[in-house]
Amino acid sequence: MHFGIIGLGRMGANIARRAMRAGHACVAYDVDPRSVEALAAEGAKGVAGIAELVEALPAPRVIWLMIPAGLTGDVVAETARLLSAGDILIDGGNSHYRDDVRRGRELAERGIHYVDVGTSGGVFGLERGYCLMVGGPDEAVAAVEPLLRSLAPGAGDVARTPGREGEHSPEELGYLHCGATGAGHFVKMVHNGIEYGMMAAFAEGLNLLEHANAGAERDELSVEHAAEVAPLDEPELYRFDIDTSRVTELWRRGSVVSSWLLDLTAAALRENPSLDGLAGRVSDSGEGRWTVKAAIDVGVPVPVLAASLFERFSSRGEDRYANQVLSAMRQQFGGHRELPGSRA
Amino acid sequence: MHFGIIGLGRMGANIARRAMRAGHACVAYDVDPRSVEALAAEGAKGVAGIAELVEALPAPRVIWLMIPAGLTGDVVAETARLLSAGDILIDGGNSHYRDDVRRGRELAERGIHYVDVGTSGGVFGLERGYCLMVGGPDEAVAAVEPLLRSLAPGAGDVARTPGREGEHSPEELGYLHCGATGAGHFVKMVHNGIEYGMMAAFAEGLNLLEHANAGAERDELSVEHAAEVAPLDEPELYRFDIDTSRVTELWRRGSVVSSWLLDLTAAALRENPSLDGLAGRVSDSGEGRWTVKAAIDVGVPVPVLAASLFERFSSRGEDRYANQVLSAMRQQFGGHRELPGSRA
Amino acid sequence: MHFGIIGLGRMGANIARRAMRAGHACVAYDVDPRSVEALAAEGAKGVAGIAELVEALPAPRVIWLMIPAGLTGDVVAETARLLSAGDILIDGGNSHYRDDVRRGRELAERGIHYVDVGTSGGVFGLERGYCLMVGGPDEAVAAVEPLLRSLAPGAGDVARTPGREGEHSPEELGYLHCGATGAGHFVKMVHNGIEYGMMAAFAEGLNLLEHANAGAERDELSVEHAAEVAPLDEPELYRFDIDTSRVTELWRRGSVVSSWLLDLTAAALRENPSLDGLAGRVSDSGEGRWTVKAAIDVGVPVPVLAASLFERFSSRGEDRYANQVLSAMRQQFGGHRELPGSRA
Amino acid sequence: MHFGIIGLGRMGANIARRAMRAGHACVAYDVDPRSVEALAAEGAKGVAGIAELVEALPAPRVIWLMIPAGLTGDVVAETARLLSAGDILIDGGNSHYRDDVRRGRELAERGIHYVDVGTSGGVFGLERGYCLMVGGPDEAVAAVEPLLRSLAPGAGDVARTPGREGEHSPEELGYLHCGATGAGHFVKMVHNGIEYGMMAAFAEGLNLLEHANAGAERDELSVEHAAEVAPLDEPELYRFDIDTSRVTELWRRGSVVSSWLLDLTAAALRENPSLDGLAGRVSDSGEGRWTVKAAIDVGVPVPVLAASLFERFSSRGEDRYANQVLSAMRQQFGGHRELPGSRA
Repeated sequence: MHFGIIGLGRMGANIARRAMRAGHACVAYDVDPRSVEALAAEGAKGVAGIAELVEALPAPRVIWLMIPAGLTGDVVAETARLLSAGDILIDGGNSHYRDDVRRGRELAERGIHYVDVGTSGGVFGLERGYCLMVGGPDEAVAAVEPLLRSLAPGAGDVARTPGREGEHSPEELGYLHCGATGAGHFVKMVHNGIEYGMMAAFAEGLNLLEHANAGAERDELSVEHAAEVAPLDEPELYRFDIDTSRVTELWRRGSVVSSWLLDLTAAALRENPSLDGLAGRVSDSGEGRWTVKAAIDVGVPVPVLAASLFERFSSRGEDRYANQVLSAMRQQFGGHRELPGSRA
Repeated sequence: MHFGIIGLGRMGANIARRAMRAGHACVAYDVDPRSVEALAAEGAKGVAGIAELVEALPAPRVIWLMIPAGLTGDVVAETARLLSAGDILIDGGNSHYRDDVRRGRELAERGIHYVDVGTSGGVFGLERGYCLMVGGPDEAVAAVEPLLRSLAPGAGDVARTPGREGEHSPEELGYLHCGATGAGHFVKMVHNGIEYGMMAAFAEGLNLLEHANAGAERDELSVEHAAEVAPLDEPELYRFDIDTSRVTELWRRGSVVSSWLLDLTAAALRENPSLDGLAGRVSDSGEGRWTVKAAIDVGVPVPVLAASLFERFSSRGEDRYANQVLSAMRQQFGGHRELPGSRA
Repeated sequence: MHFGIIGLGRMGANIARRAMRAGHACVAYDVDPRSVEALAAEGAKGVAGIAELVEALPAPRVIWLMIPAGLTGDVVAETARLLSAGDILIDGGNSHYRDDVRRGRELAERGIHYVDVGTSGGVFGLERGYCLMVGGPDEAVAAVEPLLRSLAPGAGDVARTPGREGEHSPEELGYLHCGATGAGHFVKMVHNGIEYGMMAAFAEGLNLLEHANAGAERDELSVEHAAEVAPLDEPELYRFDIDTSRVTELWRRGSVVSSWLLDLTAAALRENPSLDGLAGRVSDSGEGRWTVKAAIDVGVPVPVLAASLFERFSSRGEDRYANQVLSAMRQQFGGHRELPGSRA
Repeated sequence: MHFGIIGLGRMGANIARRAMRAGHACVAYDVDPRSVEALAAEGAKGVAGIAELVEALPAPRVIWLMIPAGLTGDVVAETARLLSAGDILIDGGNSHYRDDVRRGRELAERGIHYVDVGTSGGVFGLERGYCLMVGGPDEAVAAVEPLLRSLAPGAGDVARTPGREGEHSPEELGYLHCGATGAGHFVKMVHNGIEYGMMAAFAEGLNLLEHANAGAERDELSVEHAAEVAPLDEPELYRFDIDTSRVTELWRRGSVVSSWLLDLTAAALRENPSLDGLAGRVSDSGEGRWTVKAAIDVGVPVPVLAASLFERFSSRGEDRYANQVLSAMRQQFGGHRELPGSRA
């Protein structure tokens, strides 16, 4: 089918490529003309502006936006002004679902369909396909299904779930109409929230493995630390020298924690076993925050997801004042000194 | 190679089977003679007692114990009395690594080698192979390597980690000598701790998806709840009807959270989409507790792993008195009444 | 000084009473005429509507609103329509500070001053005084300072903080201009977030004391629980029979945890030592949610405050689906059964 | 009554002083002769060794040990060798209750009574009195009650709990026989666990107040941070400049969070409003760890207490490897760079 794409960053360009490889005809625009040229060289029709893109597409038009979240609102507005009733605007970026709900309602007043697509797959998507979580009105989602199907990974060699038989359902092919407008990004948001929790579970566990020889190191520390830090009661139980690079590789086979995140972790630790050059300031791009706030809105407890989010905040030093307060309180009730330590 | 196995429960019998299929000769014992008979029918040499098992093995003997954790100590002691210097005793059960450290030291005094093997794979291990985390002295682990190699999954069709070339290392085949005595069960313990965290991440995320229509339901609740529970500020943002069974299936393809645990979750929700008949009282078998306690011993923060453990305690009602205290405090500072609710 | 009060519930009526006892002249209105009559009998001028209240006050008018949070917006709007430039509208209820920011901006356009007051003290405030956290423009806050000073507890017999000398500052008298419009309710919100955390700390600790005899009870449970719940390793260490009612009374004197919340807890446990009749479904009125969401907005880690909030959600059964998912996963990887238990 | 005291550090010396002021006769020993001299100058009988101390006391002897936890075991053993049946040995230090259980059992075999006393009060105890949590056999605790009563704060000016009438009970005077041997330190342990949670609640809340102007600062950060850190959605809601020193002073009067810990916090922030010179590396002395481990043993959820403990670990940089793992994972799935930041 014909579709336009606006935004040819890493994600947008690869989505266009994967669609074209499946035979879809693509009209492409980006603010950077070099990105347009690059994709035109691979078969897309490059255009110099949104108006030109809209003109180049047959009605009803299908336009996929792949724009940084902060800019999506403006591009949606600008594009929508040029569209007609029956056209379909897809937001495939990392929008907050609450923006979808509002935008969908506004566009619906003019008969324009808005479809939100949460897209997982990152830099591997071009080859592996994208996992697509879709929200929007039934007819619009149905109209773009050929495109979704081409972008999705397909059934691949994933073992079939017991009880599933016959033709593959969309979710078995890697795309799913999750519900009304916003449902796609809502599911994607929760997906990322879960990802935060899984990542933290690995990080905490590997940190413990890395400290498994605390009993060996402790002798020299004991003099200095004795007064203020609880000593290790049984140092003889913590004298293991464990290679996290090899352990993560091991767990990839036959273990309960095998997962794509583990694959990535094993790759990272193979590439850089000592994690040299990483300061451990962990960014967060918003979905984790949105997930916890949504859970609070509906009164659902998410202690693990929240803890994983807060660990990231703390990794960037945002716990500093809280810790100073704690030290100050301890000084008040008995002259506890702070210990010199590794965190300057 | 020749080996004996003591304990023919589900795990033990399948380990024996997988080893025999690979050509190893097995002498088998269990307190239940029917289990011995069943395995004898598949090619094992069945025996009626530990002494007989020891006698039936060539020196140096290799004996694999697969016993419930609570009984392992007694069986180790009983078996060790019958062994000679150079023999190898393998504990493949779910022992606490601190018991390994003590037992290994005691047996070493008599020249008997003790090898601890953390085994992941559950009921799927017979076909998929077992992920084996091994601790013990170098020479003993080397001596049993042929057995470990046969039980492990092998390289299989898992994509090779970038940077790994040439012959497969043991960890790529699914077994690893992790370190000194106890290291195997230590790594297995942490593995299970991570598993708790990952499971909780999925459970919390899916719970949020299940509540994504709170805005639709809330109208009828609002009258009753208005006085004591914070109302939903923006009900129009929580009107999604999401099918967790289909979403978990979807995520198995191309998403960042794809994992064996997700495969199981999708299977469970396919089999029983409404989770009827499950009260949600979640057991814990010890490794999660040991993991958090070990982290506390060495001063490593594990908020996610601990939160996942505490959720299980709460699921069994162990938070009840704490919650009663909270209600009692609230009554004191202003006559807050408890609401009638779903948790009787 | 003259002031009007709208809303004569428990909090509003007591605020009016405390102000009148200090000599301020009060015009009072409530939708319930009986509340108006009651206060009029104590010296207030009762009126039958907001318009009458506005008319009865000398310019520039000072009006204190003490309305349930859900209704405050409407009453602010209705009242503001009747006010003139220079008048001062005080919201002393439990509003979200973000509503203050918006309302303050809107009213400022018409020259009306908006002052937000977070009020702590509950049913004890009439006698003890109210702790007042105030936000708003300097001149408006200065204008109402006589009223604030009368409502606040005063210096009382609280020991003076070392380094503070001379005349008491406002904060030493129990009221404080915290900052621009919204700052009062922002500080009150955080205050309540802290309160959640403190309450949870007590509740968890007392729950542990209540389980200190788990070793004594465990024998009878051991048969039933052995297969699925980790047994108590050292039951001889958990055979204490501790009276939480007496312990909380004890801690009121000389201990580090002495606090007003402890006073209330001791009172509650004295009144009802077994907490009979309390199901432990703990409500939350919004401030805890707002606190965690604000922390997420600014990227501040609040693991303790969030955990205390989530415990309340779980106490109301909102973790049920998550726990069912966990049980379902466990069944998948090895036929783990659910145990019968206390949480139906 | 006559009693001996071993260990004249800050705590021990003050306990001796407070007892002597109440008329008790004290025999005092410390490894540092200057400490003995100092106390002798205040009326104690100073001795040069434990044997001399035992000889100087009338039978049945009462000896109070106030020794750093790591040394208590040796001193108990050394002292007990010199005691006779009927003598009473009190451990008033910060021992782990599990050591009490073992020691009490060993000493009981020789007819020596062991009493464990958890002592709260810190440097303020000499004047305020000590909150005493006591474990041990009934007759021994009864025998030392005059001493306990003198050390405790007494009823003081703490408001009486409703429902308590007549003569003050021991807990109203500040000491309590909590249960069998070990119960005193068990209750003290939980007390300190609660203290951790309360301290963390204040620290987190104040940290949020300190960030309440994030919206004002964010403009300059936005360029640098835009790509990797979620921007502040509504900066206009975070433009408060709040003085935590004044707010903590305010809350001391009439608020729900008023407490001794708040008094200390207000004092600390008055003394050093910017917390200059505090790096925020927060020590932990063991009780918090013991509390969480005990809760895990008996299966009681303590998410708040555990989170407060883990915050301390993280404050000392013990989360570093976990955070490096997270950054490494993020680099794998899409070239996310680490941001430069404040935590070197």
